[in-house]
Amino acid sequence: MTITITAFERSPDRGQGLARDMPVRWALEEVGLAYEVRLVSFEAMKEPPHRAANPFGQIPTYEEGELTLFESGAIVFHIAQRRSGLLPDDADARDRAVTWMFAALSTVEPPIVERSMAVIFESDKPWAAERLPAIDARIRTRLHELADRLGDAEWLDGAFSAGDLLMVAVLRRLHRSGMLDEYPGLHAYVARGEARPAFQRAFADQLAVFNAAPQPD
Amino acid sequence: MTITITAFERSPDRGQGLARDMPVRWALEEVGLAYEVRLVSFEAMKEPPHRAANPFGQIPTYEEGELTLFESGAIVFHIAQRRSGLLPDDADARDRAVTWMFAALSTVEPPIVERSMAVIFESDKPWAAERLPAIDARIRTRLHELADRLGDAEWLDGAFSAGDLLMVAVLRRLHRSGMLDEYPGLHAYVARGEARPAFQRAFADQLAVFNAAPQPD
Repeated sequence: MTITITAFERSPDRGQGLARDMPVRWALEEVGLAYEVRLVSFEAMKEPPHRAANPFGQIPTYEEGELTLFESGAIVFHIAQRRSGLLPDDADARDRAVTWMFAALSTVEPPIVERSMAVIFESDKPWAAERLPAIDARIRTRLHELADRLGDAEWLDGAFSAGDLLMVAVLRRLHRSGMLDEYPGLHAYVARGEARPAFQRAFADQLAVFNAAPQPD
Repeated sequence: MTITITAFERSPDRGQGLARDMPVRWALEEVGLAYEVRLVSFEAMKEPPHRAANPFGQIPTYEEGELTLFESGAIVFHIAQRRSGLLPDDADARDRAVTWMFAALSTVEPPIVERSMAVIFESDKPWAAERLPAIDARIRTRLHELADRLGDAEWLDGAFSAGDLLMVAVLRRLHRSGMLDEYPGLHAYVARGEARPAFQRAFADQLAVFNAAPQPD
């Protein structure tokens, strides 16, 4: 059955692979599932046909026969269930990997996204100089805790899992901030994720979309 | 095997049931699993013994024999897998329910938590009058989209699921803001969740913790 995902017609991050189609592409590459991509414009995303697949008018969506899913976390989980390679076979280890998926998206990511929004929408506001450092402090608390847990391990809990995939995808949002450089263990962890052949293929494919239609400055 | 969860020793919301032990208690009640609660102080949460269970120093954690989990979303998912009642049997319907779990925690909740933090930490800041309405606008966008999708249905996708449980838990954070009143469909949806006997039992149990040791004003 053909798998079709949606992605931005024009990359808002200029090909850095920070949009949420990236973890889905990466997961599909890790387990060796072929997929097609339907590009959608920012306008079309908010129209009824796309909202039928994702009520929040966002990418990615995932279509496979009768099944339509949204939410990158849920799509990665679906992919991880279908094929081996992203979740351990042992039931307890599997639940711990799922824990890291939720930790990535609901504990580590929120202050990082809040920082991105503050940089984009509030940089010219009089309060930016006071607020941004407060957000950065919240992010550093999480990075410190995550670095402590990871220690010298290669991945968060045994073999590479969907939890690592989502955590690396979340941490990559910090590349431009330079904050990852303060945590050499996390920096190396992200680099290990980015060095995986499946990541490389997924990254190249999303970059090709940007190169085919670069966004004007 | 005994199930033990952790919860705040003193309720920061004065017994409103907004802390993250609440969805876990609710899920356990829905499927009829008995559990014990170990109360932890704000200080003890940040110490090594608790961080061994949750590296981010938060509640709840979940212990069951050799298995230790954290992240309320992951714990609810674990519970939903163990017993029937929170996830459909059909594989596609199950994946759609998981989609709503992620949607609750990673799409709907973040601006709601950001609002709570702005109210608590930034109300006295000169920018509060400009920033709070901007956050509210982001929340209303999500509420509008969610209300559109729910329509006249009782639950988000067929029978009540772990997705509804987490979504109702997230929306309850808006009670004091009055914003839910603007969306009668969502208001009724939350009321349906709160009327469930399992919710009532979980709510009473967390309230008993607050009543046993009320927090000083």
